[in-house]
Amino acid sequence: MSFLYKSEPERGAVWARLFAERAPDVEFRIWPDIGDPSAVRYLAAWEPPENLAETCPNLELVFSVGAGVDQFDFSRIPPGVPVVRMIESGLVAGMVEYATLAVLAAHRDWPTYAAQQREGVWNPLRVRTAGSRRVGVLGMGVLGQAVLTSLQAFGFQCAGWGRTPRELPGVESFAGEEGLDAFLARTDILVCLLPLTTATRGILSRALFDRLPPGAALVNVGRGGHLVEQDLLDALDSGRLSAAILDVFDTEPLAAGHPFWRHPRIMVTPHIASMTQAETSAEAVLENLRRHRVGLPLIGLVDRSRGY
Amino acid sequence: MSFLYKSEPERGAVWARLFAERAPDVEFRIWPDIGDPSAVRYLAAWEPPENLAETCPNLELVFSVGAGVDQFDFSRIPPGVPVVRMIESGLVAGMVEYATLAVLAAHRDWPTYAAQQREGVWNPLRVRTAGSRRVGVLGMGVLGQAVLTSLQAFGFQCAGWGRTPRELPGVESFAGEEGLDAFLARTDILVCLLPLTTATRGILSRALFDRLPPGAALVNVGRGGHLVEQDLLDALDSGRLSAAILDVFDTEPLAAGHPFWRHPRIMVTPHIASMTQAETSAEAVLENLRRHRVGLPLIGLVDRSRGY
Repeated sequence: MSFLYKSEPERGAVWARLFAERAPDVEFRIWPDIGDPSAVRYLAAWEPPENLAETCPNLELVFSVGAGVDQFDFSRIPPGVPVVRMIESGLVAGMVEYATLAVLAAHRDWPTYAAQQREGVWNPLRVRTAGSRRVGVLGMGVLGQAVLTSLQAFGFQCAGWGRTPRELPGVESFAGEEGLDAFLARTDILVCLLPLTTATRGILSRALFDRLPPGAALVNVGRGGHLVEQDLLDALDSGRLSAAILDVFDTEPLAAGHPFWRHPRIMVTPHIASMTQAETSAEAVLENLRRHRVGLPLIGLVDRSRGY
Repeated sequence: MSFLYKSEPERGAVWARLFAERAPDVEFRIWPDIGDPSAVRYLAAWEPPENLAETCPNLELVFSVGAGVDQFDFSRIPPGVPVVRMIESGLVAGMVEYATLAVLAAHRDWPTYAAQQREGVWNPLRVRTAGSRRVGVLGMGVLGQAVLTSLQAFGFQCAGWGRTPRELPGVESFAGEEGLDAFLARTDILVCLLPLTTATRGILSRALFDRLPPGAALVNVGRGGHLVEQDLLDALDSGRLSAAILDVFDTEPLAAGHPFWRHPRIMVTPHIASMTQAETSAEAVLENLRRHRVGLPLIGLVDRSRGY
C-alpha cells in the first residue's frame, strides 16, 4: 500500500519524514519513483499523472496539494475516487495575512502612493476611518471566513457573499444571485476568494464592476480565471474602479509586456498570497487518511457536480 | 474664558460644534480670530503663536493637536503651563492600521514585489510564516502597545523596547540602553514609534542597523529626525537592511530628487500613517478640560524634562 506524492520536492521531503513517523505502514513515494503502480492507494498532486485510471488501478483517494481543484480534469480521475482539496492551517494563515495586507493597502491608498512615489509626488490624502469603509468578501468558505474575522479587528464594515447563506458574527451575509446586487452596492473594497468553477469563471467583469459604488477597489486572490482582464483595465481607466491588487492571473507567469505590469492603479504579486505549508499540510493529509481508513467524513471533500 | 484653536480649519469647525454642545461656557475661537487675548485660557495648536506668554498672559493649558510635541519650542511656552499631547482613539486606530499594513508588507516582501513589478519580473519568493518572523517595536507608549496587540493576532514573535520596562501579555519586553542590544539582535522587522527627543534623535543610524540581524527591514512611523538618511541608504545598498517603509522625513515634503523616491527597496508615503480625527480628538480634549477644571490628572501630560 503506497502514497504517491507528485508535487514540489522540498515539501515532499517533509511529508516523507512525517509519514514515516505517523503512518509507517504506508509506503511514501515521490513521483516519478512510483514503485508498484498497483500498490498506489493514495495520490497527492497539483496535476495528476496522465492515464491515472490505467496507471494506478487501485487508487482510493486523491488529494489536491492546493486550496483549489480547478486545475484538475475530473474526467481523468476515476468517478468512484473521492477528491479532497487542501484545508490546512498554514494555507489559511497565509491567506489571512495577504488579504488583510491587501485590504489595508487599498483602504490606506497605497496603490495611489506607489504611483506618486514613481512620479516623485508628495500629496497626502485624507485618512478615512475603517469604520466608514465597507469591505466585502466574495466566497465564504474556510478562507473567506478567516479573512473576514481578521478584517473585523480593524473596525471595517464587513460583509460576505456565498452560494448558500452562512452566518458569521458581525458580518453581514448575502447569498445567491438574488443577494449579489445588494452585496455589491454596499462594497467599497471587494475581495475575491471564490473557487473557480463554470459558475464563477469571468465573474469579475464589467457587469459586476458596474454594480459596485464608483471608485471601489478590487483584490483578487481567487483565480485568474475569475477576472475579465480587459474589463478591469476599462473600469480603472474610466475611474469606475480606483485600484486593483492582483495575485492571480489567467496566464501565469504574467506575460512580459502585459498591461497590468505598468498600470499605475494595479499592484501585481506573483501568485504568492498563500502557499501550502509543508508541515501543516502533511498533518491535514494524515488526518484525512486516518478518517478514510476508519470511515469518517473527509475534511474538504470535493463535490464534483459543483466543482469544489 | 476662551479656547483658542490654531490648526487645520476643517477639523476646527467640528471642534467648534462639539464645544458648543459640551462646554458652552467656553468661548471657542479659531486662529487668527482670537478675540480678547487675556481671555484665552486654553490653546490647541501644532505650532503655538509667536510671543505666546505676552499675547495670552492667562494661559492655563496647551494642547498639541498631534501625537508628538517635538514641534514645540518649550522655551516659548510659559514654564508653569502644562502641555498635553494628543491621545485619542482615531489617531491610535490609524497608526494600528498603518503599522500593521507596513509590517505585513515587509513580512510578505511587498517592497521586493513592487520593484519586480516596475521591471516586469515574475519571481515568487518562498512564503515565510509569521511565527518565524520576529517583529520589534521601538517605543511602548499608547501607540506602540496598540500596534503590538494588533500584530500578535497574526502570530508574529513580538517584542517591544522602551525607556522604562513595560509589561504587555505575549510581548517580550526590553528596556533601557542595557536592553537595546538584545532587542535589536532578535528583530527582523523594526518599527520606530518613539517620541522625538534629544535622546532619540538620530537613533536609526548605522550603529543601530549593525546590531540588527542581516537583512532586517525598517518601518519608520516615528519622526524623520529619528533617521540618519545616509546611513539607511548605505545599509540598504550594502544589503545590511533589506527594505524600508518610511512615512516621515527630516524635511517634509520630501524634496524632489531625494534618493528615497527612486530607491528600489524604499517605500515612501507622505506622512499619512495617522492623523488626528476631528470628532475623537475633540472628545479627548473636552475630557482633559473637564479633568483640568476638577483637578484630576491630565491624560497625556508632557514631562518637559524628558521631552514627551
